[in-house]
Amino acid sequence: MEGTPIRPQDTDQLLQSILSEARQNNQGKVASYIPALANVDPECTAIAMVTNQGQFFQAGDADTPFSIQSISKIFGLVMAMRRSGNTVWQRVNMEPSGQPFNSIVQLEWEYGIPRNPFINAGAIVIADMLVSQYSTSKLAFIGFLRQLAGTDRLYVDEEVYESELTHGSRNAAMAYLMHSFGNMEADVDQVLEHYFYQCSIPITCKQLARSLCFLANRGVDPFTDESICSRRDAHRVNAILSTSGMYDQSGEFAFSVGLPAKSGVGGAIAAIIPGLGAVVAWSPRLNHFGNSHRGMTMITRLAEEMGLSVFGV
Amino acid sequence: MEGTPIRPQDTDQLLQSILSEARQNNQGKVASYIPALANVDPECTAIAMVTNQGQFFQAGDADTPFSIQSISKIFGLVMAMRRSGNTVWQRVNMEPSGQPFNSIVQLEWEYGIPRNPFINAGAIVIADMLVSQYSTSKLAFIGFLRQLAGTDRLYVDEEVYESELTHGSRNAAMAYLMHSFGNMEADVDQVLEHYFYQCSIPITCKQLARSLCFLANRGVDPFTDESICSRRDAHRVNAILSTSGMYDQSGEFAFSVGLPAKSGVGGAIAAIIPGLGAVVAWSPRLNHFGNSHRGMTMITRLAEEMGLSVFGV
Amino acid sequence: MEGTPIRPQDTDQLLQSILSEARQNNQGKVASYIPALANVDPECTAIAMVTNQGQFFQAGDADTPFSIQSISKIFGLVMAMRRSGNTVWQRVNMEPSGQPFNSIVQLEWEYGIPRNPFINAGAIVIADMLVSQYSTSKLAFIGFLRQLAGTDRLYVDEEVYESELTHGSRNAAMAYLMHSFGNMEADVDQVLEHYFYQCSIPITCKQLARSLCFLANRGVDPFTDESICSRRDAHRVNAILSTSGMYDQSGEFAFSVGLPAKSGVGGAIAAIIPGLGAVVAWSPRLNHFGNSHRGMTMITRLAEEMGLSVFGV
Amino acid sequence: MEGTPIRPQDTDQLLQSILSEARQNNQGKVASYIPALANVDPECTAIAMVTNQGQFFQAGDADTPFSIQSISKIFGLVMAMRRSGNTVWQRVNMEPSGQPFNSIVQLEWEYGIPRNPFINAGAIVIADMLVSQYSTSKLAFIGFLRQLAGTDRLYVDEEVYESELTHGSRNAAMAYLMHSFGNMEADVDQVLEHYFYQCSIPITCKQLARSLCFLANRGVDPFTDESICSRRDAHRVNAILSTSGMYDQSGEFAFSVGLPAKSGVGGAIAAIIPGLGAVVAWSPRLNHFGNSHRGMTMITRLAEEMGLSVFGV
Repeated sequence: MEGTPIRPQDTDQLLQSILSEARQNNQGKVASYIPALANVDPECTAIAMVTNQGQFFQAGDADTPFSIQSISKIFGLVMAMRRSGNTVWQRVNMEPSGQPFNSIVQLEWEYGIPRNPFINAGAIVIADMLVSQYSTSKLAFIGFLRQLAGTDRLYVDEEVYESELTHGSRNAAMAYLMHSFGNMEADVDQVLEHYFYQCSIPITCKQLARSLCFLANRGVDPFTDESICSRRDAHRVNAILSTSGMYDQSGEFAFSVGLPAKSGVGGAIAAIIPGLGAVVAWSPRLNHFGNSHRGMTMITRLAEEMGLSVFGV
Repeated sequence: MEGTPIRPQDTDQLLQSILSEARQNNQGKVASYIPALANVDPECTAIAMVTNQGQFFQAGDADTPFSIQSISKIFGLVMAMRRSGNTVWQRVNMEPSGQPFNSIVQLEWEYGIPRNPFINAGAIVIADMLVSQYSTSKLAFIGFLRQLAGTDRLYVDEEVYESELTHGSRNAAMAYLMHSFGNMEADVDQVLEHYFYQCSIPITCKQLARSLCFLANRGVDPFTDESICSRRDAHRVNAILSTSGMYDQSGEFAFSVGLPAKSGVGGAIAAIIPGLGAVVAWSPRLNHFGNSHRGMTMITRLAEEMGLSVFGV
Repeated sequence: MEGTPIRPQDTDQLLQSILSEARQNNQGKVASYIPALANVDPECTAIAMVTNQGQFFQAGDADTPFSIQSISKIFGLVMAMRRSGNTVWQRVNMEPSGQPFNSIVQLEWEYGIPRNPFINAGAIVIADMLVSQYSTSKLAFIGFLRQLAGTDRLYVDEEVYESELTHGSRNAAMAYLMHSFGNMEADVDQVLEHYFYQCSIPITCKQLARSLCFLANRGVDPFTDESICSRRDAHRVNAILSTSGMYDQSGEFAFSVGLPAKSGVGGAIAAIIPGLGAVVAWSPRLNHFGNSHRGMTMITRLAEEMGLSVFGV
Repeated sequence: MEGTPIRPQDTDQLLQSILSEARQNNQGKVASYIPALANVDPECTAIAMVTNQGQFFQAGDADTPFSIQSISKIFGLVMAMRRSGNTVWQRVNMEPSGQPFNSIVQLEWEYGIPRNPFINAGAIVIADMLVSQYSTSKLAFIGFLRQLAGTDRLYVDEEVYESELTHGSRNAAMAYLMHSFGNMEADVDQVLEHYFYQCSIPITCKQLARSLCFLANRGVDPFTDESICSRRDAHRVNAILSTSGMYDQSGEFAFSVGLPAKSGVGGAIAAIIPGLGAVVAWSPRLNHFGNSHRGMTMITRLAEEMGLSVFGV
């Protein structure tokens, strides 16, 4: 598939059709654990696809920013892998959890080593690495994201950030538990601040899809030709996304869609299409796994129509 | 990649090199929960690859039969999907378990619905479906396997079968627990007999690799052109194999290898290479997840050398 | 308190008052996991107290038999202690479980050693000992109970027994799990038959209270002066009853009542009053812990009025 | 038993004999999670009994102070019950946990409501109540303890206190988890400071035994005749101590000793003898439940020799 631009007109039409269909799905609830997220317009719906050839396709509110939330975990992981290489995996595992994303049970059973970098505990360990390795890890993070998104105009949403800090006691519990097992090096408060900071950045579907193309392009950002990570590490991140990116619905997502993907409670689902590019679907109402209802509908339909599953032929 | 035969000479040489390297790995222990398995020669090592083009490549003891064990779960699942379609998924989930393969804990928490068809509890539910749907499910099973393996000379190993029945109390515990939750329809003893029967069939690397090519070929057996399952169901089985086929090492396997695969305590690992064919590596010594040490070495090296990861480009 | 007969008239009046009060409590549901229990008249209510001095006090349906169910676990334990002494405690622990009575989770965590002899798994291990030690353990059991109850007219209820066997898959799951850990010696089916047999004996409040007086009387049956167990073992059984006899409400029972006690899903609660005698309250509607609602009301009030708590002065 | 002074000479001799026997037990390890505790002389051994009649008996290092640690939980609970009455039980349960004392698993399953006030999580909830109710809860606590111990010379050990704060991340994890479930009202840091403060008070066997006599005396301090709590609340505290005071060895302690008791990782075990008084045994080496080895030996022997079990006659 690599190297062949997809046909623009068909794709625009397809995304439009997918969007219309998704808008009929009114199931689910907007994340409400912090007020700043609860106030998002539940009707917002968008899909954007960006190809390694530099093509942009979109439908709906694809230029409206939403809270990146857990999808930031991908960028944190890539930053940590760039600095620490394989030592990352001494502090976080790479297995699916079989538990809700914020479960503390498994963390106790497994002596403070999180199951994977895409559940909260794992992302907090990654945040600890970033805080320890960068003098100003927040700036480093947003700088990295701006570079990949091709825009200098990404900023943290202070209201969301403050709100996350205020309501972050469950994540604090996980951080302290990992600290008690010796798996936290920096100051816990500073780690949590970094973690909530990276979750609190607003981004649009288009920006986010562009930011992820390197994972579909052997680690090379197709817009700048810069190598973001090794080819092998791009495969590896995709592999972990495939088994663990969609919380406790990852298996079903592999079954129905078959793409490496990550979701966030802001309502976005970002999927990597190896060799082709990346796609982001967004709509705020979530199912009980924490994944966007309309987002699932859109990505599933797109994968079916275009035959995108990595498990097929 | 589809349609292009791979180069025979190179491949034979590669497999031979992979085999020699693997023979230097003496870690692990032969499965010893039943005497019949404990007596297998721990030095046996083999790898066989069969392509959708009908090519056979092999190295080592590729014509020596071993106990199919858990790899039989793939064939059971496909049989159940052929008969029951999507209703299969009302009785078994499709999520990774994050627990050892014979864990009973999660089964209680999740009201008798196993996490996926590739852990023991899930395969027992599938066995229940087969027993309920076929007048003689054992014959149907071995008939299906013979058809795919292209040989009439597959038989159950009575010694292993009896031994499994005698030492099967943990699986019996799971079956009764599912029965107590209403997720067992046939007679528990009969279901367990079917389950142990399908686990107790000796098969060679070559036979097994051939049997699995349909999953790499859109559901069509390339040797007979018969449709075994729909294209979509082939993708789906591959997806579940990717997230849950290697017990609690599935994430690491996706990370390092990137192929849908299933292992068995007989020491075999069978991997699907979508579009290309199937490969089976075998050697009896197991790591603590229950996966063959040398088998992991062989499949990992093969995937790297040939660039097989479905998550790459 | 020992040696002093309590005043008959006051006691009869107190029991009558307690009964009237309890009849106003209509909370809870009759056990319905088997039809034979579901059909019991939910309005039945009784209380009977028997003293070591040979006095009998009663109110309500104290001569109506109910299914002894889990209260039989006391007699099974005492029988096993008589035969096996301290070796009993190599196969079953003596700690409260902190889990529902039929939980299988803890059994897996603790390698097939049940937490205590008063949860189902523990009583099944005890049943295994009895089956192994007695040629006809069922007859031995009912013989022991008849002796203590002072009547030859106790029989198993065949309907309840058959019903238990048919609906016993959860207990079968526990038995097989313990078998898989090597903590089951006799044939699993035979052990389960014994276990369900001892649960299926109808008995009245008066008979049951009389049967338990030896635990309040240093191990000596006050009606026959026969030594049933050592003084120390009587204390020990009372201790385990205090920490584990009331399922996952044992702590609250110790807090509000302060007497060693055991409940059964037939709706009875039997309490030992060290030095004084035994009391049994019965009414079929259960709370969500599996303890009789009216039974709790009656025993709590009795303990308060008479100042019976062993933790007080 | 109440009202009868025990014979001084016999008792002194008994305690001396018990002490000598205990000194032969060299099993176990001194608590080492903080340096300040790890440095205690492991050979220290003492036992002190104080009766409601005002008699003092002792043997060994009964005037050497040790860290009160978890035994402080009794005084915290009594203070909270005095202020809050039955509302205490809306925020903490009264059931044995069946888990190690610092388990976080159960706390997640049970939505932030600790199993009982004698595991860490429960004591932290109690600390939260005290911090919320008293302007200076630390002073209130040490004042209460001084009153009961009959001495003004009790102070916090600053070294232990600082050390606890530094190594307190597991307790912090629990506090934050409870906060996330809405079961923490005051500032988490302040609550933890109170909790560690009350744990870090050095006290002697004699002082501690005297402090606890009110629980053996209907809630009345026999040295001052002041009512510390109601008769019923004294019974209730004893009941919870009986089911949950000795960590995950509470059942065995009830079985072998039969007294309400609480242990601490400082190596002390304090037991209430209803109607008679209180006894404290101390020696720093702990078994794997966190209870003093020699302490268990001493209390067990004392209870046997004097026939103290509340479950006996």
